[in-house]
Amino acid sequence: MKQLSDYVTTIPDFPKEGIMFRDITSVLQDKNGLKLAVDTMIRLADDIEFDIIAGTESRGFLFGMPMAYALGKAFVPIRKKGKLPRKTVSEEYSLEYGTAEIEIHSDALKKGDRVLLVDDLIATGGTMRAAAKLVERLGGEVTGMVFLIELPTLKGRAALDGYDVRSALSYDGE
Amino acid sequence: MKQLSDYVTTIPDFPKEGIMFRDITSVLQDKNGLKLAVDTMIRLADDIEFDIIAGTESRGFLFGMPMAYALGKAFVPIRKKGKLPRKTVSEEYSLEYGTAEIEIHSDALKKGDRVLLVDDLIATGGTMRAAAKLVERLGGEVTGMVFLIELPTLKGRAALDGYDVRSALSYDGE
Repeated sequence: MKQLSDYVTTIPDFPKEGIMFRDITSVLQDKNGLKLAVDTMIRLADDIEFDIIAGTESRGFLFGMPMAYALGKAFVPIRKKGKLPRKTVSEEYSLEYGTAEIEIHSDALKKGDRVLLVDDLIATGGTMRAAAKLVERLGGEVTGMVFLIELPTLKGRAALDGYDVRSALSYDGE
Repeated sequence: MKQLSDYVTTIPDFPKEGIMFRDITSVLQDKNGLKLAVDTMIRLADDIEFDIIAGTESRGFLFGMPMAYALGKAFVPIRKKGKLPRKTVSEEYSLEYGTAEIEIHSDALKKGDRVLLVDDLIATGGTMRAAAKLVERLGGEVTGMVFLIELPTLKGRAALDGYDVRSALSYDGE
């Protein structure tokens, strides 16, 4: 039987030279890979208490939504600036070059809501730290973070110190 | 009991004056709304035969993935140009001002695969027509298209003539 890692494709030098890109679309384009990936992430979150799953645009949508549907939870999208139509709060964070800004709808959660953050991959943890800040600015509590893939070399766990970080697969090197 | 339409928010003048924007994030941020929306779209697709669900970036991901997970199908993302890491085919299409280009991985489906296209909303149908062309260029057959919301005033069904188009909710006016 194929394992989860068998469905991940590695593309050297994408999007630029020196990067080993871990592609999760090859997981999803196989029905067995898709089921295995989502089931594995659901199992990782098994003992985390949460009311809402939040996922960042756009690969966080791919995993957060089936988890929310299967578990009977709500889903809150965190998007790049300017994409959400209602009142938002936003958070800027650093990229390798320059900055980026993500937003959440101000009414997406209420004080005390427990939130599970979901994304396909944790690298430096910058996006996820900004996402956690958005949740907290609305009074929510981030009770866990679940990823399909972790790149430990990039020290995302250190950037997310204090949060319960879990991942299904781990790859050395960038 | 609340109906599906009760969860949709209408935002006047977004993203520009004169547009009544139908916001689906308010559906998803309520656990009952999310379940009702996905279940309704699954039911709409009930008698359509397909092997794969394809969804366009990024709101198509929100609905296509939970449907694929629930139904035991594969999911293929159709993305804006430059986002997919492996070999792609691409299709350009017209927007109100200028053009856009979307892509699909060349190995995402094989000749004869039956594909259900999923998105949150059908307006002019331009994106979905380009998505259907991508599927067909790879030898796939588009056996149906399912949307949460349809804006009939914008005549998307005419643009998608020959395809089996289904939607859960319909709103007059743009």
